[in-house]
Amino acid sequence: MVEAQVAPAQTLPQLAQQLRVDSIRCTTAAGSGHPTSSMSAADLIAVLLAKYLRYDFDKPELPNNDRLVFSKGHASPLLYAFYKAAGAISDEELLSLRKFGSRLEGHPVPVILPWVDVATGSLGQGLPIGVGMALNGKFLDKLPYRVWVLHGDSEMAEGSVWEALGTAAYYKLDNLTCILDMNRLGQRGETALGWNSRVYAERARAFGWHAIEINGHDYGEIDAAYQEAVSRTGQPTFIVAKTEKGHGVSLVADKNGWHGKALSANEAAEAIKELGGVSSLVVKAQKPQDQKPATAPSSGPYQCPRYEAAYSTREAFGDALKALGAARAEVVALDGEVGNSTYSEKFGHAYPERFFEMFIAEQQMIGAAVGLASRRKVVFASTFAAFLTRAYDFIRMAAVSRASIRLCGSHAGVSIGQDGPSQMALEDLSMMRAVFGSTVLYPSDAVSAAHLVSTMADLKGISYMRTTREKTPIIYKNEDSFPVGGSKVLRESSADKATLVAAGITLHEALKAYDQLKSAGINVRVIDAYCVKPIDIATLARAARETGTLIVIEDHWPEGGLGDAVLEAFTRDVGTLPRVIKLAVRSMPGSGTPQELLDAAGISAKHIVETAKQAL
Amino acid sequence: MVEAQVAPAQTLPQLAQQLRVDSIRCTTAAGSGHPTSSMSAADLIAVLLAKYLRYDFDKPELPNNDRLVFSKGHASPLLYAFYKAAGAISDEELLSLRKFGSRLEGHPVPVILPWVDVATGSLGQGLPIGVGMALNGKFLDKLPYRVWVLHGDSEMAEGSVWEALGTAAYYKLDNLTCILDMNRLGQRGETALGWNSRVYAERARAFGWHAIEINGHDYGEIDAAYQEAVSRTGQPTFIVAKTEKGHGVSLVADKNGWHGKALSANEAAEAIKELGGVSSLVVKAQKPQDQKPATAPSSGPYQCPRYEAAYSTREAFGDALKALGAARAEVVALDGEVGNSTYSEKFGHAYPERFFEMFIAEQQMIGAAVGLASRRKVVFASTFAAFLTRAYDFIRMAAVSRASIRLCGSHAGVSIGQDGPSQMALEDLSMMRAVFGSTVLYPSDAVSAAHLVSTMADLKGISYMRTTREKTPIIYKNEDSFPVGGSKVLRESSADKATLVAAGITLHEALKAYDQLKSAGINVRVIDAYCVKPIDIATLARAARETGTLIVIEDHWPEGGLGDAVLEAFTRDVGTLPRVIKLAVRSMPGSGTPQELLDAAGISAKHIVETAKQAL
Repeated sequence: MVEAQVAPAQTLPQLAQQLRVDSIRCTTAAGSGHPTSSMSAADLIAVLLAKYLRYDFDKPELPNNDRLVFSKGHASPLLYAFYKAAGAISDEELLSLRKFGSRLEGHPVPVILPWVDVATGSLGQGLPIGVGMALNGKFLDKLPYRVWVLHGDSEMAEGSVWEALGTAAYYKLDNLTCILDMNRLGQRGETALGWNSRVYAERARAFGWHAIEINGHDYGEIDAAYQEAVSRTGQPTFIVAKTEKGHGVSLVADKNGWHGKALSANEAAEAIKELGGVSSLVVKAQKPQDQKPATAPSSGPYQCPRYEAAYSTREAFGDALKALGAARAEVVALDGEVGNSTYSEKFGHAYPERFFEMFIAEQQMIGAAVGLASRRKVVFASTFAAFLTRAYDFIRMAAVSRASIRLCGSHAGVSIGQDGPSQMALEDLSMMRAVFGSTVLYPSDAVSAAHLVSTMADLKGISYMRTTREKTPIIYKNEDSFPVGGSKVLRESSADKATLVAAGITLHEALKAYDQLKSAGINVRVIDAYCVKPIDIATLARAARETGTLIVIEDHWPEGGLGDAVLEAFTRDVGTLPRVIKLAVRSMPGSGTPQELLDAAGISAKHIVETAKQAL
Repeated sequence: MVEAQVAPAQTLPQLAQQLRVDSIRCTTAAGSGHPTSSMSAADLIAVLLAKYLRYDFDKPELPNNDRLVFSKGHASPLLYAFYKAAGAISDEELLSLRKFGSRLEGHPVPVILPWVDVATGSLGQGLPIGVGMALNGKFLDKLPYRVWVLHGDSEMAEGSVWEALGTAAYYKLDNLTCILDMNRLGQRGETALGWNSRVYAERARAFGWHAIEINGHDYGEIDAAYQEAVSRTGQPTFIVAKTEKGHGVSLVADKNGWHGKALSANEAAEAIKELGGVSSLVVKAQKPQDQKPATAPSSGPYQCPRYEAAYSTREAFGDALKALGAARAEVVALDGEVGNSTYSEKFGHAYPERFFEMFIAEQQMIGAAVGLASRRKVVFASTFAAFLTRAYDFIRMAAVSRASIRLCGSHAGVSIGQDGPSQMALEDLSMMRAVFGSTVLYPSDAVSAAHLVSTMADLKGISYMRTTREKTPIIYKNEDSFPVGGSKVLRESSADKATLVAAGITLHEALKAYDQLKSAGINVRVIDAYCVKPIDIATLARAARETGTLIVIEDHWPEGGLGDAVLEAFTRDVGTLPRVIKLAVRSMPGSGTPQELLDAAGISAKHIVETAKQAL
């Protein structure tokens, strides 16, 4: 085994061929995977490892390690071959690729593998995430680490990439380098731009980047480009590297029909011979300077905002976020150019150095949140709840990344009123419930909202708070507590004939309905299901046992929201299903006052009263 | 009332001021809305109406009418003022803006208003949709209509816009013009690029468009730019119009803090005075030539593909799509560069003129589908089910658009195997169920898949088919039928002690479990819930009544999928409430063989058998 601290020029070809050979070996052993997409970028990664990457593989937790993101996550064989070449994994582990229980999954995932920061495999996500990492290095931790993103050419069609290009230039992220592995061939043929490197470079330049066109198999050109990237100030660098898919092996080089296919054992043997045989060169990456981040986590006392009079939950979110910012230096906020609606601007005005405007680019916003989270920041990202649908793929992938990020969606439901259905989130609870390991919160008053924001700061995984446009009355005492997985029984008697389960805006309708039913001599229980996921099974089960019928009222489509969350509770060992009646939005809303639209949707107090009377 | 067939030059200023005055009047009457974002574009729309738009307002159904899409849907006051100026609506109706029951919603919606093609209001969607309309005009209907998209500058941050710019240039859509209303101010301050029109123009040029920079308040420059746009061949045209938000009224012109705010009655009176007072000029747009589309809908016999041996549902989708293409000329297919995985390439190879490669740009793909649907095409769009999450906002808005589009998501669930969680759709059923008016299909064999594809062709609204990567055994006879809202009871006896409800891949596990349970002397019913939405309530209710316990097995997170769909059935008046046990994916999967991953997720036959035994 040869070991080189910094590889001399003659080591590079050997290193690159080893990366190719290992990409073939592990995919052939797996019987699937992406050898050719790995081989195109082998020279680019070899030069990076040998001369530019500053990374301590023994201490992946070092804050000043460079970050390397494989946006083209399907080139994971190359990534794993690179880990072997860096001395981080054994040849034996390399050959476990894609096998059940192996750390080397089909696409890279973090935590399982300590050198991976974020999961990739859904294309077009590496650069928006890299922007988050670079924002952290430049503006928060103030560390000289660099962010390197290996990018595919097919994924340049994804809009999220251009959101990232615009954002990176806006923030002058000169610590960010995008290496475009322009191998011409996508999954089913040529990409839209083929080998037209000039067009890629012109687009990158128009977006404010320093762009360089090179031959991605020429070590001198690669070296010069990386040198330019690390020397450049005031601008991120975009390297368009012309490469061949499957480079180095005549059977597959620049051939269509070889995307995502492993070579057979015989083909692999031939290919490995052509590449110079199996080797186990280890090239130690340079170590970074051991610098401490400028922002150390801190935990001062959280001064929870207090409320007495009607107040919107969205504004309480803003107040609480600001209070959290005062207590903890690692809290960071992002917004999609609606900070004066979500009220994240309260944080932004107080802590402008920790607030990043993402403009109307929700995918970039979530990508940046994931990147910042990977750098140990407690990130909140907010926009209209409806527009988080724009970033669903990023949210889904954030869960695969095991990232902890906190989302707030304002202006949810028909109760926003006049703006109409394009602005009404009516699927957000469903969308967020179906995210692995998520927490879904829907407070009905400012007190509970403010408490839950501080709770979110310490939650693992993806947490989501739905807030309401309108002011709502204060229900709770400022001293109350709102644990995750809990609920509040607001009205209860031994004579309860049914239970109203609601959250957010509809809770207030339920309370009005309670009064009307009470006047009519009908007792009902009222539960505030402020935590939609995980839902309070015990309290719901007791209500079912004691009152028989549950009426769930939600400002949401009938599918996947609070009603389904309540039903879900009865699929565990809580006996048979109770009778559940769901009041939800079942026709397409238009414009109108909030009350008109709640009435039209059949989720206002009036309808709750009618439903309860009919049911009893 | 003055009427002008084609307005002479002196009419333009009056027309533009009227559009401004009416934008103020209707928003002040509503007490909310976006007058200033309307006023910036008034001159641009005045010239369009007076000199360029070819549109018969009495016959909005004419195939050769120009299309006008307000991508900045919040400028609806201007759109409605334009309708009044075109003689399409009365002044009285204009003043009904945003009121409950008015056709003039906060953001424009089609059907309700016959001149609106598609709903806007979620920014960055107008151009991808316009691409679909332009593809239709150029390649399918072969009509000379033009597509005009009025675009905001804040929304240029949305990646979907750049997907559209790339796609429009790739297809050389010279019938498409984007008019950028660069008014500098977003919702909460200046946009990322402010009035930097050169950067917008350079970006558009780099993306292959003809770009023109103009003063958006100079009629001569606007006129010249439109003339250039309609004369240009081989390239779409991007007009960067420098404008002032609130132009014409000193109180609000180019002032921050006036986004989305109506003027008070007094402010409005002053403003209207400054603009020259109220008027009711009517300017008739030119009528288009009455040409017929090259592609008339046709309905030949559908030759449903037939299957005997194990076959994947994704490949059956491709076969059926091709068969549908043979039967009906209006069937069009789009794919996100994975046509050789979804098998939409079978259609593409047979009907290349009706297949549009969208590359890896899922938002553009759904946008184009909506645009094509608005031009009466029967559109299917396909990609990996996981990546449809990328376009959730577009799918949501397609429902607001009352569009009929057909989506197919392949490679769903852990059963895809080695590629790992980034490629596994585990939230798609939830996502698609929570789309207003959607139909969600999940066939388990090629026969049912092929039948359901032809059914989708005639469905209204958003329909979705989930397909499976692996080959699955054939269960059905080729002559069977699969109505929407139906299910199939595959195993049934009077001794059934429980019911297994499954669909797609898990149905085959359920059938294996049935055999094992039967051997152990336990009879269970097996239901194929191939239609997840609307679900077959009657059959589930009967099963609940007759067998007591339902075990639902799904290759999906526990939230929002088949299990929740089954539970939803029991929120109506269906009598006996069952005990429901959900087997679903409850931990983050990794890589492995399909069978290993089904086992690890606890949704394979083995687990079904164990669960059934424990339950009984």
